[in-house]
Amino acid sequence: MGITLAELARLVQGRVRGESGFMVERANSLERAGPRDIAFVAGAYYLNRLAESRAGAVILAEADAMRFSRNAVVVENPQLAFARVCAYLHPSVAPKPGAHHSAVLDPSARIAASATVGPMTVVGAGAVIGDSAWIGPGCVIGSNAVIGERTRLVARVVVQNDCVIGCDCLLHPGAAIGVDGFGFARDGSRWIKQPQLGRVVVGDNVEIGANTAIDRGTFGDTVIGNGVKLDNLIHIAHNVRIGDDTAIAACVGIAGSTVIGKRCTIAGQAGIIDHVEIADDVHITGASVVTNSLTQPGVYSSSLRAEPAARWRRNIARLYQLDELARRLRRLERRLQQLTKE
Amino acid sequence: MGITLAELARLVQGRVRGESGFMVERANSLERAGPRDIAFVAGAYYLNRLAESRAGAVILAEADAMRFSRNAVVVENPQLAFARVCAYLHPSVAPKPGAHHSAVLDPSARIAASATVGPMTVVGAGAVIGDSAWIGPGCVIGSNAVIGERTRLVARVVVQNDCVIGCDCLLHPGAAIGVDGFGFARDGSRWIKQPQLGRVVVGDNVEIGANTAIDRGTFGDTVIGNGVKLDNLIHIAHNVRIGDDTAIAACVGIAGSTVIGKRCTIAGQAGIIDHVEIADDVHITGASVVTNSLTQPGVYSSSLRAEPAARWRRNIARLYQLDELARRLRRLERRLQQLTKE
Amino acid sequence: MGITLAELARLVQGRVRGESGFMVERANSLERAGPRDIAFVAGAYYLNRLAESRAGAVILAEADAMRFSRNAVVVENPQLAFARVCAYLHPSVAPKPGAHHSAVLDPSARIAASATVGPMTVVGAGAVIGDSAWIGPGCVIGSNAVIGERTRLVARVVVQNDCVIGCDCLLHPGAAIGVDGFGFARDGSRWIKQPQLGRVVVGDNVEIGANTAIDRGTFGDTVIGNGVKLDNLIHIAHNVRIGDDTAIAACVGIAGSTVIGKRCTIAGQAGIIDHVEIADDVHITGASVVTNSLTQPGVYSSSLRAEPAARWRRNIARLYQLDELARRLRRLERRLQQLTKE
Repeated sequence: MGITLAELARLVQGRVRGESGFMVERANSLERAGPRDIAFVAGAYYLNRLAESRAGAVILAEADAMRFSRNAVVVENPQLAFARVCAYLHPSVAPKPGAHHSAVLDPSARIAASATVGPMTVVGAGAVIGDSAWIGPGCVIGSNAVIGERTRLVARVVVQNDCVIGCDCLLHPGAAIGVDGFGFARDGSRWIKQPQLGRVVVGDNVEIGANTAIDRGTFGDTVIGNGVKLDNLIHIAHNVRIGDDTAIAACVGIAGSTVIGKRCTIAGQAGIIDHVEIADDVHITGASVVTNSLTQPGVYSSSLRAEPAARWRRNIARLYQLDELARRLRRLERRLQQLTKE
Repeated sequence: MGITLAELARLVQGRVRGESGFMVERANSLERAGPRDIAFVAGAYYLNRLAESRAGAVILAEADAMRFSRNAVVVENPQLAFARVCAYLHPSVAPKPGAHHSAVLDPSARIAASATVGPMTVVGAGAVIGDSAWIGPGCVIGSNAVIGERTRLVARVVVQNDCVIGCDCLLHPGAAIGVDGFGFARDGSRWIKQPQLGRVVVGDNVEIGANTAIDRGTFGDTVIGNGVKLDNLIHIAHNVRIGDDTAIAACVGIAGSTVIGKRCTIAGQAGIIDHVEIADDVHITGASVVTNSLTQPGVYSSSLRAEPAARWRRNIARLYQLDELARRLRRLERRLQQLTKE
Repeated sequence: MGITLAELARLVQGRVRGESGFMVERANSLERAGPRDIAFVAGAYYLNRLAESRAGAVILAEADAMRFSRNAVVVENPQLAFARVCAYLHPSVAPKPGAHHSAVLDPSARIAASATVGPMTVVGAGAVIGDSAWIGPGCVIGSNAVIGERTRLVARVVVQNDCVIGCDCLLHPGAAIGVDGFGFARDGSRWIKQPQLGRVVVGDNVEIGANTAIDRGTFGDTVIGNGVKLDNLIHIAHNVRIGDDTAIAACVGIAGSTVIGKRCTIAGQAGIIDHVEIADDVHITGASVVTNSLTQPGVYSSSLRAEPAARWRRNIARLYQLDELARRLRRLERRLQQLTKE
């Protein structure tokens, strides 16, 4: 498989600099690219590596175009153009449509003729699998669940009963969608389960990482908006709503009934408490803990930074005396004031 | 399916206010409830929403009974009564008893006639599946493992060899019970595996969340007490013991050989170090880290709160100078004392 | 199964103290050991429990040899010797070689005659399963993946296409190897997927815990060195490289392209940011967050310690005023200096 630079430029609405007929075979990183590979350049990190690259062609911005004398495609957003080129040159191809003979399909499930159902997968009663959907091996699709067109479940994904996954989604191994939320009533010291009767509704173009768990709503729905990207090992509790195009990195936990806006980014290991609202365009730094609603866009943080342990211990010991230190400071200020008044 | 208010009141030991013969069809949240639905009210959050609710009936406490003029059931603990009503109106019904033809059952496994074994499930040699247990699709039950009566494994749960799950438990997708603990001896710079020969023993009425992992004991047992509730993505290391009715929220990690008391609550993303003891009735706030034994009941915390990042960075920069600040404060105090003595 | 003390001493290059012909049947902990069991002693914790132990024999160091009057094997490193004895007395035995009839094997896969493939496992086109490898039930081995000799996948493990697992590895349930990394380009407010075309390459003697996820490289490889030990619920992002013999405890997250040295230890719930380098022999304490490269070996920390919540809140409230407190301190110092100059 290959593509000429001219065709490639058309694909990404760019402009060729060099040989239009140059044939590109693969996309690759600047460090690994060979003479038939195309790479991309965006920012100082890449520019520093450009001279040593053996790439046959690169994608870069107008501002950097003079930095590379060989074949190039000049575009506005090189990273974006490159992602598109990668997808073109290295498509993930579904196996032939149809269900593997080992799959267990309830007779009442409606599975599109163009869909693929892998080995060892179980599809429950009334489930719907859309056109060109690709359900990999070892998945479990619950009764009346809906999987949208062109959505792929890589392997061993569980989508529980009544949950809805939109079109063009990608769910990675171990993802569990539609888990019972963690809801209990107290009966003295015992916990009595509050049945979890709602669903998970996932929009279009959503990616859900490996071993990420999304709880179903208690009565209503847990909602994952269009274009949301969820990394691995994330916990989304019941009744949470996540706005369109929000991206959440690995190991994040979001507690029950919290509402997150659009276009937010939440970095790895961050946590958000239950029943709060996060505005659109909020960015949470890694390992930060959000304990109240954030009504304004912006960057929020409560993360620390590892130091040599001896030094850290010395400083942190004072943290546990901080209120006392602050009181002593106040006292000093008062005494000094008295002193200078006298 | 429906129930009259009179029957419903009997079920929850409450008192009808309004039409005893009013027929309730579903349980629902106050916001979503329609004219044939019953909802519940407990606390200001719900009271504020009560006027606008279209619920046909509500469950509420005596103190709030005057706040709602339509049909109601008055009880002592509305949340608890409501959980019971939900379970009654929306039972989760197991499929027919028996094993799916695709399941692989070792001939020496003892599977109760009233138990259900789903498609693609594997049951090992000598395993025991109790009366009315419901093993969903894609599960793996190891050799000599025991699954108690009426326990449900939703889907894709692994219970490894020799582990014991009590009665009336609920295990969610991806839960892994009986994993080897993380035990190694050093041989120079190499790690040599310490075989993990113990079991996991889970009591009755335990819930275990999606993708939660529980390690087997090194020699003895990792023990999860009766009534314990574990949320998603929790790690329980080898030899840990968790007391009855303790509830642990998502993303918590508990290190090896730690003992946790009864009726504790551990909020999301908290961590507890190895080899410590936590007393009964201890409550740990979200994202807190416990690094020593806690011998007294009470609430413990080490969690921070995300702030606008610029402000946070300013404050936190001082944290890394805190020991020096404290010393400067001490010095000032001494000098001022000398000054006033002179 | 049993072994005489003399044979056992030979196995661990130790010296018998007592009856050479004493027959040991099992390895056990000091607390649980009976008269036919062997336990080990290393450090004060164990020495305190030695007097009450009913162990028939113990493994201990020369320095402690006088503390136990019954049968013993004296070695240099008791914990290491004991791990070896456990493995000898309690081997994990693979079922008979061959593939279970329910497994789905692509005809082009090359599976060693001495390998075992469990029920419900799927092996893709061109995959290679090495000699004496043991693939448990419910696993998915992607196309062209390679599983080394004597490696065991316990159950329900996914190794995606093209990934390579070395020899003598142990992968626990739910582990997902070769997941797409979390890479996207921005197109206005939308995220466009950067295809993830690399692999995961895992060395020899690696252990990977339950529900741990390892992303494939974007173009190159995510590399897990020889002898690396990964606990449960760990996230390893794309392009990460982990040096030989590094051990990482549960719930740790490591962001993209970060390089970790050899012989490091990273305690539970720690997090490491993307694109940093961690030197050899670095030790990170539990729940610490690493936000920059660490070029020197040593212990690093940013972890806190849970306190009674009221006290914690009082101190932490001051943390949010810390910059102001530091400025007030500076002001005081200046005024006092002026005062004493006057």
